[in-house]
Amino acid sequence: MSYTAPIKDMLFAMKELAGLDDVAALPGFEDATAETAQAVLEESAKLCGEVLAPLNVEGDRNPSSWRDGVVTATPGFKDAFRQFAEGGWQGLQHPADYDGQGLPKLIATPCIEMLNASNLSFALCPLLTDGAIEAILTAGSEEQKQRYVPKLISGEWTGTMNLTEPQAGSDLALVRTRAEPQGDGTYKISGTKIFITWGEHDMADNIVHLVLARTPDAPEGVKGISLFIVPKFMINDDGTLGARNDVHCVSIEHKLGIKASPTAVLQFGDHGGAIGYLVGEANRGLEYMFIMMNAARFAVGMQGIGVADCAYQKAAAYAKERVQSRPVDGSAKQSVTIIHHPDVRRMLASMRAMTEGARALAYVAAAHCDIAHNHADAAVRAEHQAIYEYLVPVVKGWSTEMSIDVASLGVQVHGGMGFIEETGAAQFYRDARILTIYEGTTAIQANDLIGRKTLRDGGAVAKTLIAGVAQTLDALAAHEGTAFASMRARLADGHRSLAAVVDFVLANAKQDPNAVFAGGVPYLKLAGIVLCGWQMARAMLASAANEAGDPSFCGAKIATARFYAEHVLPQAAALEASIVSARGGEGVFALTEDQF
Amino acid sequence: MSYTAPIKDMLFAMKELAGLDDVAALPGFEDATAETAQAVLEESAKLCGEVLAPLNVEGDRNPSSWRDGVVTATPGFKDAFRQFAEGGWQGLQHPADYDGQGLPKLIATPCIEMLNASNLSFALCPLLTDGAIEAILTAGSEEQKQRYVPKLISGEWTGTMNLTEPQAGSDLALVRTRAEPQGDGTYKISGTKIFITWGEHDMADNIVHLVLARTPDAPEGVKGISLFIVPKFMINDDGTLGARNDVHCVSIEHKLGIKASPTAVLQFGDHGGAIGYLVGEANRGLEYMFIMMNAARFAVGMQGIGVADCAYQKAAAYAKERVQSRPVDGSAKQSVTIIHHPDVRRMLASMRAMTEGARALAYVAAAHCDIAHNHADAAVRAEHQAIYEYLVPVVKGWSTEMSIDVASLGVQVHGGMGFIEETGAAQFYRDARILTIYEGTTAIQANDLIGRKTLRDGGAVAKTLIAGVAQTLDALAAHEGTAFASMRARLADGHRSLAAVVDFVLANAKQDPNAVFAGGVPYLKLAGIVLCGWQMARAMLASAANEAGDPSFCGAKIATARFYAEHVLPQAAALEASIVSARGGEGVFALTEDQF
Repeated sequence: MSYTAPIKDMLFAMKELAGLDDVAALPGFEDATAETAQAVLEESAKLCGEVLAPLNVEGDRNPSSWRDGVVTATPGFKDAFRQFAEGGWQGLQHPADYDGQGLPKLIATPCIEMLNASNLSFALCPLLTDGAIEAILTAGSEEQKQRYVPKLISGEWTGTMNLTEPQAGSDLALVRTRAEPQGDGTYKISGTKIFITWGEHDMADNIVHLVLARTPDAPEGVKGISLFIVPKFMINDDGTLGARNDVHCVSIEHKLGIKASPTAVLQFGDHGGAIGYLVGEANRGLEYMFIMMNAARFAVGMQGIGVADCAYQKAAAYAKERVQSRPVDGSAKQSVTIIHHPDVRRMLASMRAMTEGARALAYVAAAHCDIAHNHADAAVRAEHQAIYEYLVPVVKGWSTEMSIDVASLGVQVHGGMGFIEETGAAQFYRDARILTIYEGTTAIQANDLIGRKTLRDGGAVAKTLIAGVAQTLDALAAHEGTAFASMRARLADGHRSLAAVVDFVLANAKQDPNAVFAGGVPYLKLAGIVLCGWQMARAMLASAANEAGDPSFCGAKIATARFYAEHVLPQAAALEASIVSARGGEGVFALTEDQF
Repeated sequence: MSYTAPIKDMLFAMKELAGLDDVAALPGFEDATAETAQAVLEESAKLCGEVLAPLNVEGDRNPSSWRDGVVTATPGFKDAFRQFAEGGWQGLQHPADYDGQGLPKLIATPCIEMLNASNLSFALCPLLTDGAIEAILTAGSEEQKQRYVPKLISGEWTGTMNLTEPQAGSDLALVRTRAEPQGDGTYKISGTKIFITWGEHDMADNIVHLVLARTPDAPEGVKGISLFIVPKFMINDDGTLGARNDVHCVSIEHKLGIKASPTAVLQFGDHGGAIGYLVGEANRGLEYMFIMMNAARFAVGMQGIGVADCAYQKAAAYAKERVQSRPVDGSAKQSVTIIHHPDVRRMLASMRAMTEGARALAYVAAAHCDIAHNHADAAVRAEHQAIYEYLVPVVKGWSTEMSIDVASLGVQVHGGMGFIEETGAAQFYRDARILTIYEGTTAIQANDLIGRKTLRDGGAVAKTLIAGVAQTLDALAAHEGTAFASMRARLADGHRSLAAVVDFVLANAKQDPNAVFAGGVPYLKLAGIVLCGWQMARAMLASAANEAGDPSFCGAKIATARFYAEHVLPQAAALEASIVSARGGEGVFALTEDQF
């Protein structure tokens, strides 16, 4: 597999849409200049293109394997992980105090996109380690931070998130794993966790499991869940590794995709008890998990964008090479490369436009996160934090939903060859399929978008974003030509649809929660389509301003945005209709359970 | 895997929507009463549910295998095929003169749906045999018909279609396989054919390959292609099998799905020449192939409906059993089965509504085909043939496109378990992915819909169907209540959208073929959505008339149709916008080749 990081597109989105200069002006981010960003992206592109992408197919054909409790990663992965770690990539967005690079999320995000584009299975290991780092930094003691974070950042150790149990998937209230206090400050953890990504492997010396469990006196439900660190190997006081802890991988799953990433069933405490350390306060585990889950959800959104871009690159390359049939317009007597056929071009343009839109919105969200963390003014921080939090379920939900469609179009562009595994297009279709499920299904994201992100503040943030779209509409009016006219018309429709749906959600959630939540995923998709469309419109405006200097690049941006306007944005009205006119899910519940 | 054929739904669509009584009144179909239909469907359901469905997962885990030119089908398949053949199922819709059952397509179609629902890989073998039978009956000599058809119908032999070559996929003008006349009426065939479904296997004694090839003096392009019969084993004059012919399977493909069906690379004539027999006249091969391809394309549409229904059944069963989270409306303090969660119910309703709509349209198309073949009046035959031909690309294209979405929703309903291969939901997602590709990609169907089916008759058939929708709209107006109001409003929108798009296609195809063809797949989807929606509306009307007798069944039909109206039909306007307002693909071509 080959992957070329679209550095120029990435830098464009960072500078022109996400405001890299503003981020670099924040206290603590003084080094985050455009030059730094470009240098970091170029290094990252090298590692991803040269080391990780070539291993992607290998990981699919020769997945991580389990034998007697030991998991061996796909050949080549261990060495690649060493290169990743030595390059300092795990620490990109983590604080310098713990040996991280302390770069803004806006610069880390394109690197994470590249990682995922080149090798989704590999990228999951750093993704989960980021989650563990975030959890410990958020809620851990200073001693825990010192003990674990530098080793996680150096890649000597990796991290995992242990939430799911057979009976507790989306519903963490059902977590049953037990944590018995031992009187010495430690706990004995016992239970079974499933779906633990990179839960066991041979790429690093130790694995730091972050585990949700209940203490004996904990209240029922989600308010009785605590967070524990359970290392695979105990850690001596001098930092060296000690005895093997009682956490064992009893099997790994046989999955549809992301086969190189071992998905472990972990058994805690079958041989005397696994020693665990409480993180933060007891019974606040879910709260800590949610903090780190925002980061993980955003990262899964980036997985969607990464896999979509790689699928697009592969399909475009094939379409420029495969010769088949004469053009429908009679412009040639011979068969031509299939990129000349209208539907192939439509599919490629769809893939490209959806990927670019999702990328732009994600980078904009990353910049909000940076401002929320580093701005000098607390009020500004809070405002941007709220916007970031609204965007997280949209980035996660929409980028992953669109990635499945994009990967499927990628198969279609390849025709019959797309169905043959050797071609490689099918791997994206299989790999992408998990993204709308893990770290919270799209419905869970939609519940979050409705409940915590729309209802809780009375729609304030949603309306701020909708007002932002209106400003861009005004700016579009100053431009002429078909592309701008299309975008103005279609974005205006999208703007109206999103506003109408937000009003509907606010007005009806209390009286008719079933109907409103049945419209949740459509609302999330609508928000994704319109907010990404907004960024495409902003990209048009920026491109029009720069067109003289770089006509082909800017022309492509404008043409892609026009395609988005004409072929993606019209769905907004359909989604609005199925929420507002149909009163959400009223009709969904017209079918009784036994009628299904 | 378990599959229960929805016999009651099928009979409803056959009787109330497709007009089974009218079909049974046609000359030659006197036995095709509702009682016969029910009896046939019940027998078919038994075979499919008890014999074929249990083999579906086995075929995925233990695909057909190749060794030294010999292909061995998945264990159990050979015996199942014998049962299929002995039951007379291959002959269902073929003439009694050649040992078939001579039943209408309207009765054969639900049986074919069941076959595909229970085991897509298995069903492909009869599907291709049907194609071979059709080709020989259409263009073969009486001697060829007598020699081959009864053996194909009895299941002693099976058939294949050999079109594709490495350089000739969608573009059959590029076919290079040679056919040298031997002076004795036979030909020596040489060349390589790829993607030959069930091209080699051990389920039957002989395989009858239908092969496209060129004679030495043939004109270039599609006008120089002839059709040949090339049997795997030669046939002696007494009908017994003779020498092995020189056609050999050199490999089979490693595919994303339908793994039990071997996809062969066949090498003709590497060892002295494969003996072939011309079918019909030389250079008319493509024309014959197209006749049988209409049947095969319709059958692939049924594959989509079958796999969608089975994915739906599996997801619904899981949703009624899996307990997770409390209801959002606070109606219970405990966790409930996930079918109570609004988004799960929305997904299930989508799966159900799209499948029912596609089934209804396909059965209606089958009835048109029956009238086109058996009506006493030639003018009536021609009229129905034209409608059938318009509907074939819609049934093929739309039923298969929706089947991918339905199978994907099926995975999503299962959450994390859906991604684990053991669960079985992922197999549908993999299997379905071929359906929009083989027997002509969706774009090829769309080209057919525009070129041969809309432009050629100046939109006459399209407008007949659109007028039919208008009649149903009038009938809906006589009913009250939310469900009917929703359907009336949304179907009216869909009706307007389809009419506008047909007008656009007619007005612009000549001047701007690229733009119109870039809107081809959107047009096909729009036609699918609106015409299936029309059938859903007709189902509502029929259900309202029968509601007193069977309130739950009829109530479910009305509720499903309402869901279709509120959640599927609104997409029609979005598709119209991306064709008409966007002037088809103008914007698609705004991006130049090197900008991709």
